[in-house]
Amino acid sequence: MSAPNRATLWGRVLVDELVTSGLEAVCIAPGSRSTPLTVAFAAHPEIDVYSHLDERSAAFFALGRARRTGEPTALVCTSGTAAANFHPAVMEADQARVPLLVLTADRPAELRDSGANQTVDQVKLYGDAVRWYAELPDPEADERKVRSLRTTAGRALAETGGPDPGPVHLNCPFRKPLEPLEVPGDVPEAFAETLAGAGRDGPFIETETGSMTPEANQMRPLVRALEDAKRPLIVAGPADPAALVGLEPDHVVAVADRIGAPILADPLSNLRFGPHVEADADHRRVYGGYDGYIDTLQEPDVVVRFGASPTSKPLRHALRDSDARQFLLDSAGAWREATFTATELLAAAPGPAFEALLEAVDSSNDGTADDENEWLAGFDTAEQRHWRVHDDALAPETLEADPFEGAVLATVFEDAPDPATVFVSNSMPIRDADRFGRPRPADLTVLGNRGASGIDGITSTALGAGSATDEPLVLVTGDLAFYHDSNGLLAVDRCNVDATIVLLDNDGGGIFHKLPIEDFEPPFTEQFKTPHGLEFEALGDLYGLEFERVDPVDFAPAYRRSLERAGTQVLAVAFDSETNHRRRDTLRKRVCASVRDERA
Amino acid sequence: MSAPNRATLWGRVLVDELVTSGLEAVCIAPGSRSTPLTVAFAAHPEIDVYSHLDERSAAFFALGRARRTGEPTALVCTSGTAAANFHPAVMEADQARVPLLVLTADRPAELRDSGANQTVDQVKLYGDAVRWYAELPDPEADERKVRSLRTTAGRALAETGGPDPGPVHLNCPFRKPLEPLEVPGDVPEAFAETLAGAGRDGPFIETETGSMTPEANQMRPLVRALEDAKRPLIVAGPADPAALVGLEPDHVVAVADRIGAPILADPLSNLRFGPHVEADADHRRVYGGYDGYIDTLQEPDVVVRFGASPTSKPLRHALRDSDARQFLLDSAGAWREATFTATELLAAAPGPAFEALLEAVDSSNDGTADDENEWLAGFDTAEQRHWRVHDDALAPETLEADPFEGAVLATVFEDAPDPATVFVSNSMPIRDADRFGRPRPADLTVLGNRGASGIDGITSTALGAGSATDEPLVLVTGDLAFYHDSNGLLAVDRCNVDATIVLLDNDGGGIFHKLPIEDFEPPFTEQFKTPHGLEFEALGDLYGLEFERVDPVDFAPAYRRSLERAGTQVLAVAFDSETNHRRRDTLRKRVCASVRDERA
Repeated sequence: MSAPNRATLWGRVLVDELVTSGLEAVCIAPGSRSTPLTVAFAAHPEIDVYSHLDERSAAFFALGRARRTGEPTALVCTSGTAAANFHPAVMEADQARVPLLVLTADRPAELRDSGANQTVDQVKLYGDAVRWYAELPDPEADERKVRSLRTTAGRALAETGGPDPGPVHLNCPFRKPLEPLEVPGDVPEAFAETLAGAGRDGPFIETETGSMTPEANQMRPLVRALEDAKRPLIVAGPADPAALVGLEPDHVVAVADRIGAPILADPLSNLRFGPHVEADADHRRVYGGYDGYIDTLQEPDVVVRFGASPTSKPLRHALRDSDARQFLLDSAGAWREATFTATELLAAAPGPAFEALLEAVDSSNDGTADDENEWLAGFDTAEQRHWRVHDDALAPETLEADPFEGAVLATVFEDAPDPATVFVSNSMPIRDADRFGRPRPADLTVLGNRGASGIDGITSTALGAGSATDEPLVLVTGDLAFYHDSNGLLAVDRCNVDATIVLLDNDGGGIFHKLPIEDFEPPFTEQFKTPHGLEFEALGDLYGLEFERVDPVDFAPAYRRSLERAGTQVLAVAFDSETNHRRRDTLRKRVCASVRDERA
Repeated sequence: MSAPNRATLWGRVLVDELVTSGLEAVCIAPGSRSTPLTVAFAAHPEIDVYSHLDERSAAFFALGRARRTGEPTALVCTSGTAAANFHPAVMEADQARVPLLVLTADRPAELRDSGANQTVDQVKLYGDAVRWYAELPDPEADERKVRSLRTTAGRALAETGGPDPGPVHLNCPFRKPLEPLEVPGDVPEAFAETLAGAGRDGPFIETETGSMTPEANQMRPLVRALEDAKRPLIVAGPADPAALVGLEPDHVVAVADRIGAPILADPLSNLRFGPHVEADADHRRVYGGYDGYIDTLQEPDVVVRFGASPTSKPLRHALRDSDARQFLLDSAGAWREATFTATELLAAAPGPAFEALLEAVDSSNDGTADDENEWLAGFDTAEQRHWRVHDDALAPETLEADPFEGAVLATVFEDAPDPATVFVSNSMPIRDADRFGRPRPADLTVLGNRGASGIDGITSTALGAGSATDEPLVLVTGDLAFYHDSNGLLAVDRCNVDATIVLLDNDGGGIFHKLPIEDFEPPFTEQFKTPHGLEFEALGDLYGLEFERVDPVDFAPAYRRSLERAGTQVLAVAFDSETNHRRRDTLRKRVCASVRDERA
């Protein structure tokens, strides 16, 4: 590796090692101090470079790409507040275990706290939110230093992965010249021939990371409990596909079959949809309607949970209020259960754990067949009732009289192409996806920012996910999230992503109608619901998107049309959030009454 | 103070103490966890509440208001990534010494790292960027706890000020119910009568903070040096009006007069404009054109510097390259001089220091009258030449042929009403303000985010500044900054701010033409200049602004028209950044040649 000066050498070596070690994409925001990194990335033939103008959106785009691929995406910015703009996405990456490699350019150490322009304290800027922080030394064509740089590059990528994937921060000081200008003597010609300069044929260091695999004796309590269980339950919480660490959905289904357990699959679990889901509505293993009825059923006696805490509050409360033994499976051994009623934590990746279960669990368990049948039948009936009530409520003739956001989410999942990537915003969309997203055998990858559950960066994260796949991309978002990350729409054109954006526009924070604050006016409307009256058509004009206002009854055909078209369409469907909130309540009561009637 | 439950009590006491202690404004982003704070702020009759939907913009708006007033503005957000969105503005507030009080709602401590929704580690979230961090205890109607809360409120406000003003972060955990719902027994009726419950008549604690005032013997070296100086120079760097800590511009002028020193006033020094500036062009003390000619003049032998590091790179380099004794005056004793050639640091506020100088400096200094005259005459001539060259270059007939961004900045300052607040974006606008903003006796408050020098949050900061005054508000911004904080435009309507927004649209990062990277294509255009082709009219539509495309030659009348109109107008003036860059170079060469000719 030859270079006209040390900063250029540094950038080239770092980028070369990262790419050789497997980095496939980088999001770059323009800036001067980061020139050595930007120039090296832009010149590298084997990496996808995405240019963004707002660092916050850039970071969420990188996050989305990493969520979809399970592979680290890198981020580059200049010094100063640019780096702080990455913070929200770094926080989400931490909470949601998404591999991100953050490269912040910095001024040389001697300029910190000296009044130098655009110089702030970037050391450990993201606190404990990163898996690893390293401060790169001053660039120099020194053999040991450059070997350390190559090693750091490999380590940094490795640290984004493993049992607890997440963000890694390399702070990268550079001094001028930052551009590839010749500085005589800065990088001796012979340096290119050294081990440091030339690197190795392939990555300088190879890092392999195993996954947490349980010993047979560690599995025994869980195996015994499941064999003895009369009412076993499997709860799959939110998990990006990569976070399932080799979990075969068929293994979960096979274990569930053998022990007679329903699988309650969160919309973000990546188990609610897929070929393992039976199309036959009378013989289920994967249940999706539980948010609407779980509290009407018998309590489980043994629960196996993996993934993050479920989106469904009724489910979380049902688990909290049960006396069941609850086993948590977690690849990093983290405790992700905030009611503190779980009893056992197995620090093991879901993949190996379910493989072990499949081998160990005896199907002739002590639960009598009758018990088992009754237990499963309860779920089957409830699930049937749930979807029947919703089929009625969401029928076009009903919707004409009572437009309902839930119908949009139902259609989004029902009519999504196979395969497709569906990104669902926080606040109401994910809750509606939970209740109205019916399990299907289609290969849908469903993603959301459920780590820290912010409504910032939603659009960018979705577009980042879309950038990683040729599948159709659907984003379902609310008006506040759409406003919050309006800058993210620039990526549609700049990063060449096609999407169908479903905008549920109820002019403010509909979710607050779910909360007791609704009864306190003022300040309810002005400080919580915060209607803004924004006419989002203008964003369509600004960013060159096709923008269509769609009547709720016409949503399904408009959605299907958009999915067949190239380009990005925004389908804006207007609703009244208060009416919607009442309607969700009414429907849930109807489902529960129907399930209770059946059981009576 | 009575309350239906402990969370409500906590919010009411905290807000009551803050307002009683002098807090006048708060920016609130909607959220649930922050309900006790939001409800209390919204119900308080004596505070201005600004509601924002994007926390990043909210924080910059608060920053702008605090810059303009010198008084702390509070910020409220819910838990999670919302708090991370405050980070860029907190960083700027740290660097630029702006009093900000950040109140982040949080989940109770036991939910951290438990997988609970929207729960992240907010402890010391902004690292060393805040002056004080405190974690509030769990709310409870406990007398000592509530007295501590009242004390913390007073301390927090005080910590935003003093010799080194800046951001303070209070992390505020709340548990449900968050709304003012009755919880029997939670707050005993008698509690309202206790000292904790009732507080005091006025603030619970009074905090007074002195300013750093130099002793006479500490002044002596500076006084002697100035008395002996042959070529003394006063350099006023960027400083918000409040950061001048009682500095009387007339005192600076009087000292300068007495010792025969020119005052080089940064456009952000708040000394370039004001009644202390002589209208008579032949008898100057305040110089504004030095960025164009400083390197053609004699070296100073004694320099007094205050404020942050000057915007002008030629000035910084001239100081670096001189052998002068350089005295830094700083109210917090910080070293804000990154060339490390200054020799003396006086930890004293500019106000008291100049008062002391005025008393101590003998006007019969050792510099001979001739020396002094030659020294001042050099500056006078250079300044005259500078403005003459620019008057020619910026004349309408010249502009017709050669449109030039510098002319816009010249007009902005020349035609700004008296008084007015002018906010100038980073990147090229502040550099052009430096070179083309001619000193005037008008009372212009000129602000910029020159702490960390980001281009994020510019619009919001300007609108926040405007919210604090009835003066006309002018914002000069580039297209990248305008895009970056497009969300900030929502405040025009929601927060009822009128502004004239001058948008210098050169479709990308014109500043990169100043850097050597310009010669490296690729990646210059795609990764540095980053043209985006955005037609910003659409933002006018979205946010209900009057948007006008203005031809460069018509800028002055359009600007004056806008200043006379109510409402917010965006005047978009399109330029070619490359041509502009060449023109700046040519003009500077012309000024320098003209000054050298004069001296030859």
